Amino acid sequence: MGDEVGRPRVAVVGTGLIGGSILLRLHEAGVPVAGWDPDPVTRAEGRRRGFTFPDELADAVQGRDVVFLGGPLPSLPQTLLTVAGLTDDRCVVTDVGSTKAAVAEFAGAHGLTGRFVPGHPMAGTERAGLTAALAGLFVDAAWVLCPSADGLVPFRSLVGLIVDVFAAHVVPMSPGVHDSVVALSSHVPHLLAGSLAGAAADSAVRDAVVRLAAGSFRDGTRVATTPARRTADMLLANREQVLRQLAEVRAALDGLTEAVRADDLPALVARYERARTVRLPSDHTRPVRRRFDLVGDPAEELAFVRSVGESGGHLTGCTVTGETVTYTGLRPADAPA
Amino acid sequence: MGDEVGRPRVAVVGTGLIGGSILLRLHEAGVPVAGWDPDPVTRAEGRRRGFTFPDELADAVQGRDVVFLGGPLPSLPQTLLTVAGLTDDRCVVTDVGSTKAAVAEFAGAHGLTGRFVPGHPMAGTERAGLTAALAGLFVDAAWVLCPSADGLVPFRSLVGLIVDVFAAHVVPMSPGVHDSVVALSSHVPHLLAGSLAGAAADSAVRDAVVRLAAGSFRDGTRVATTPARRTADMLLANREQVLRQLAEVRAALDGLTEAVRADDLPALVARYERARTVRLPSDHTRPVRRRFDLVGDPAEELAFVRSVGESGGHLTGCTVTGETVTYTGLRPADAPA
Repeated sequence: MGDEVGRPRVAVVGTGLIGGSILLRLHEAGVPVAGWDPDPVTRAEGRRRGFTFPDELADAVQGRDVVFLGGPLPSLPQTLLTVAGLTDDRCVVTDVGSTKAAVAEFAGAHGLTGRFVPGHPMAGTERAGLTAALAGLFVDAAWVLCPSADGLVPFRSLVGLIVDVFAAHVVPMSPGVHDSVVALSSHVPHLLAGSLAGAAADSAVRDAVVRLAAGSFRDGTRVATTPARRTADMLLANREQVLRQLAEVRAALDGLTEAVRADDLPALVARYERARTVRLPSDHTRPVRRRFDLVGDPAEELAFVRSVGESGGHLTGCTVTGETVTYTGLRPADAPA
Repeated sequence: MGDEVGRPRVAVVGTGLIGGSILLRLHEAGVPVAGWDPDPVTRAEGRRRGFTFPDELADAVQGRDVVFLGGPLPSLPQTLLTVAGLTDDRCVVTDVGSTKAAVAEFAGAHGLTGRFVPGHPMAGTERAGLTAALAGLFVDAAWVLCPSADGLVPFRSLVGLIVDVFAAHVVPMSPGVHDSVVALSSHVPHLLAGSLAGAAADSAVRDAVVRLAAGSFRDGTRVATTPARRTADMLLANREQVLRQLAEVRAALDGLTEAVRADDLPALVARYERARTVRLPSDHTRPVRRRFDLVGDPAEELAFVRSVGESGGHLTGCTVTGETVTYTGLRPADAPA
């Protein structure tokens, strides 16, 4: 695939903060890329900044090798269907939505798993829109991909692109594991931040609370400044897992509260000692390297790449040579081989 | 008071992160200062760094005009009593503990309100000890002081010292309001961080959660790395207010959770729109300036300085000239005059 010098031709549909940052980096890296956004002001802004930004979606995606789908989470399934209809079967499509099970199921129901690889670059800021986009947003960030057994070909090409162009860490996972992990690592934190900021907003001592805001308060409310609709969409798109992980966090909060109520210093210290282990640096990683036959059992390759991501590791490369594909990666030193 | 050029002679008792940073800044500013710590290793480290650091507490505090009390929160009442016994009545004492009602009550019970002004510089890091101290820690930080009606003389001199030497913002408050404000602005955030980190530490997908930790997770767990004993002491010293403010935050969390459970997008968006107002910049402040007779009604002066801090403002100066004291400050533009 690709242009005359072998670079893939890429399109980015939905150029908000994430899609826009993908566009900026691809352009900066010299990859031929077109952008499209439903908002005409964004398209004009894109053209003003020198990007290819046609008014018609078809003109942006036709003839492209890879299409990234950005934009609001609820819009992604319909955008996927539209883009799939405008491109041929060799065009690889991936998205950047923050939950993966629903869109993966949707792709399966529409026979698109052979070319659509659900994705989730784990980076962002509280800001929104193309004007907030940053070409360097994904450097060293985790970028989840959720390949299916019949989607290993597009998966392999995306791994190369994401590692080489974005310098991101590719974390392969099943859609279900992804959604349960991000519920705890991102969505529940947004609920806690919203609760703290919400209680402070309604407090009788609100102005003094803001004035005396310790680092803990500023940290604990930062993501409450994210555009409200974006946060709400994200939480509702992962409702079941959010409620399940929230129950675990509430149980931990109950334990701490009970220790405070009982004035139980040793219990409180023990709970905090346990809690802080999750923040201790654990950069003891070991390299992994595995080769698979391109025509071998896809289940084996799929199980391997998922196990790397689901055990806390990531892929650092993927090379297809002749009849084989070789993955390299890093995983925690204590993860199963 | 003061040495031959009118500078106050100061001692800092308990030179951990906060006390040590006070010592560093005073020394840097050319104020004669002695340090003391119950830990002989800390005293040796202090001497190694060129500070006056006698082995006996009496040698550190005798003849001093101002003594700052640092060290672990539960130790402060006894340290206050000891230091008060070693110094004369003109020596001003203040502390840096993170809760104020208990120590204020203790000072009252021991007849020390005329020279002890409870204090709380609102700055810190997750690190501990003199080796982690930073001379610039308090620049632009809020520094709460809790004067009582018979403690306005030491209060006035501390305001000058804290503004001039530390470039901090003096926030006068009653001890009770302080404790309720910090419960929400600092202590409850520590409980939420401990819950999130604790749930993650015990999660089946722990390694992947750490790997995919979004900014929201890192922010939401940062203070869980604070030494566990320090956090536990802080929470237990403010138990009642912590439990009261936690109930408000739990109610807000219940509201968000119910909206997620009911898949109620408008309710969720409305709650986040309300929550984020607490983080919107509101730097519309107006200057205040008030003069009081030194021999006037202390209740009026006390009510004024507390109202500045409790409404979200702070003092920027305090000048005693002849028979009057003049306070300058900033308060939110919409606060009552």
